[in-house]
Amino acid sequence: MTEILPSWRPGATRDALLTFLEKAATVPVVDRVAYFDNDGTLWCERPTYVQFDFFVDALRQRVGQDPAVAERAEFAALLGGDPTAIEALGLPRIAGALAGLFEGQTPQEFAGAVREFMARAEHRTLGRPLRTLLYRPMLELIEELRRLDFTVGIVTGGGAEFLRAVSQDLYAVPPELVVGSQIGYRLTTDASGAPELRRTAALDGVVNEGAAKVSHIQSELGRRPLLAAGNSGGDREMLEWAAAGPGGLALLVDHDDADREFAYRSMGVTVDEAEAITVVAERQGWTVSSMARDWTVVFGAHD
Amino acid sequence: MTEILPSWRPGATRDALLTFLEKAATVPVVDRVAYFDNDGTLWCERPTYVQFDFFVDALRQRVGQDPAVAERAEFAALLGGDPTAIEALGLPRIAGALAGLFEGQTPQEFAGAVREFMARAEHRTLGRPLRTLLYRPMLELIEELRRLDFTVGIVTGGGAEFLRAVSQDLYAVPPELVVGSQIGYRLTTDASGAPELRRTAALDGVVNEGAAKVSHIQSELGRRPLLAAGNSGGDREMLEWAAAGPGGLALLVDHDDADREFAYRSMGVTVDEAEAITVVAERQGWTVSSMARDWTVVFGAHD
Repeated sequence: MTEILPSWRPGATRDALLTFLEKAATVPVVDRVAYFDNDGTLWCERPTYVQFDFFVDALRQRVGQDPAVAERAEFAALLGGDPTAIEALGLPRIAGALAGLFEGQTPQEFAGAVREFMARAEHRTLGRPLRTLLYRPMLELIEELRRLDFTVGIVTGGGAEFLRAVSQDLYAVPPELVVGSQIGYRLTTDASGAPELRRTAALDGVVNEGAAKVSHIQSELGRRPLLAAGNSGGDREMLEWAAAGPGGLALLVDHDDADREFAYRSMGVTVDEAEAITVVAERQGWTVSSMARDWTVVFGAHD
Repeated sequence: MTEILPSWRPGATRDALLTFLEKAATVPVVDRVAYFDNDGTLWCERPTYVQFDFFVDALRQRVGQDPAVAERAEFAALLGGDPTAIEALGLPRIAGALAGLFEGQTPQEFAGAVREFMARAEHRTLGRPLRTLLYRPMLELIEELRRLDFTVGIVTGGGAEFLRAVSQDLYAVPPELVVGSQIGYRLTTDASGAPELRRTAALDGVVNEGAAKVSHIQSELGRRPLLAAGNSGGDREMLEWAAAGPGGLALLVDHDDADREFAYRSMGVTVDEAEAITVVAERQGWTVSSMARDWTVVFGAHD
């Protein structure tokens, strides 16, 4: 028999996962549902979010075509890499300006741009293609869940369309099982009069973080998770919701491995700004996966 | 070889479906996506919507517990079956009052009530269980699509949660592949402090009809349909969108069979109020499935 979860070191965390999987095999298939956060849970999110890198790359291309674009305050701050100017403007305003770069694109055009970027983009410091910086142990967990006929989805604070463009290739997760922050669309017609969707520059609804992850799971996916995995304060409510269900498991990835990845602690974004999510995890009895302690490899063949 | 689509009579409509299926087999699997409207496309919607019957049934139960409920104007009009009073109040106001009956329920409680109803409810005039009034030829089409690895979803103007409660059992469509009008939720905590979702009485966003079906497909499912099927003006934009794509097929169910089901024409709800959807279909060259002409059986074993 091939050993399951081979990249997880023997110990309490691996045991907790094995116990969960064993019990899950007795749960009705309809309730075998697992949702994963993406940034920092399935792929590397430091020093910058992958989607942020994509946005900045698109901005640089735009500036190459039209240098005047660089003069806009939000873009000047970004391109100058000036943390003070960025903080003064605020991330929501900068994100809004970046989203505006894609206004008027069709979903196909946007997905094509994401795929083109992900096919070539390198990590800023690790010197490897971004698309290879997936956590091998988490992929093994997904594989085991699927072996048990789990429905596996991704619930990200990032853009739904951004992740959907690559979720099938990277994770074998189809677009309908990706929930994220959602850009608005307008229905228009092309030159021949055929209907066509075009991106707006505004979000449709709220950012998919915190409590919104829970209500969006219900409204878009329709089932409560038996397992939820995350790594940040924005995942807290989703993890609490999974843990509170019968047989539910909340899995928190703790980034404590400066040698192989990054060491950082996420603070709460919604409930208690001052409390690290690892402290919440301990108090609530979640399963914590320490990168340094529990993972024999981080990125698999690419470590 | 077993004949495919056995309940479809030989003719232009069946030929169009066979040609579509043959071509679809050469399309990348990721693009093999089919979405079906539900009311009047997969199951019988006359003389009243199934969800309306469920609402009225729930109202009667509520009145049984608390007769004063019947005095509310919207409920009095409904229970009295007075078309003039119903029209004067307007369906949105009445639907809002009915949705209020379930305010505060958890998604599990609501789904349980739907399943309990669907397990016992009979059609008003056909004398058969509502759950058996599915169109056999459409189920055969779904079966063929699945044989070709299509992703099959349902896009309904009715409540998403209502249909999701039975979509797996009736159609083998999981909840994440059902898009409908969406009730709002609030995240609260139960007596033990665990997180819990509760229904509000208000819709989250707009009713899933017309152009909204297209933008909701994009935002919730993330892929354009290669095949879309509908029967009413509220399906027009979705059908136009499918038909406009490369190799796309728009299939319209024409209710022209008063003997076996009902004969009625749906008028447009969004673009042209005065035009029957069958006229739009003819002008746009959609594939029209006449119940009387194209289907050897309507409800299968239950005809």
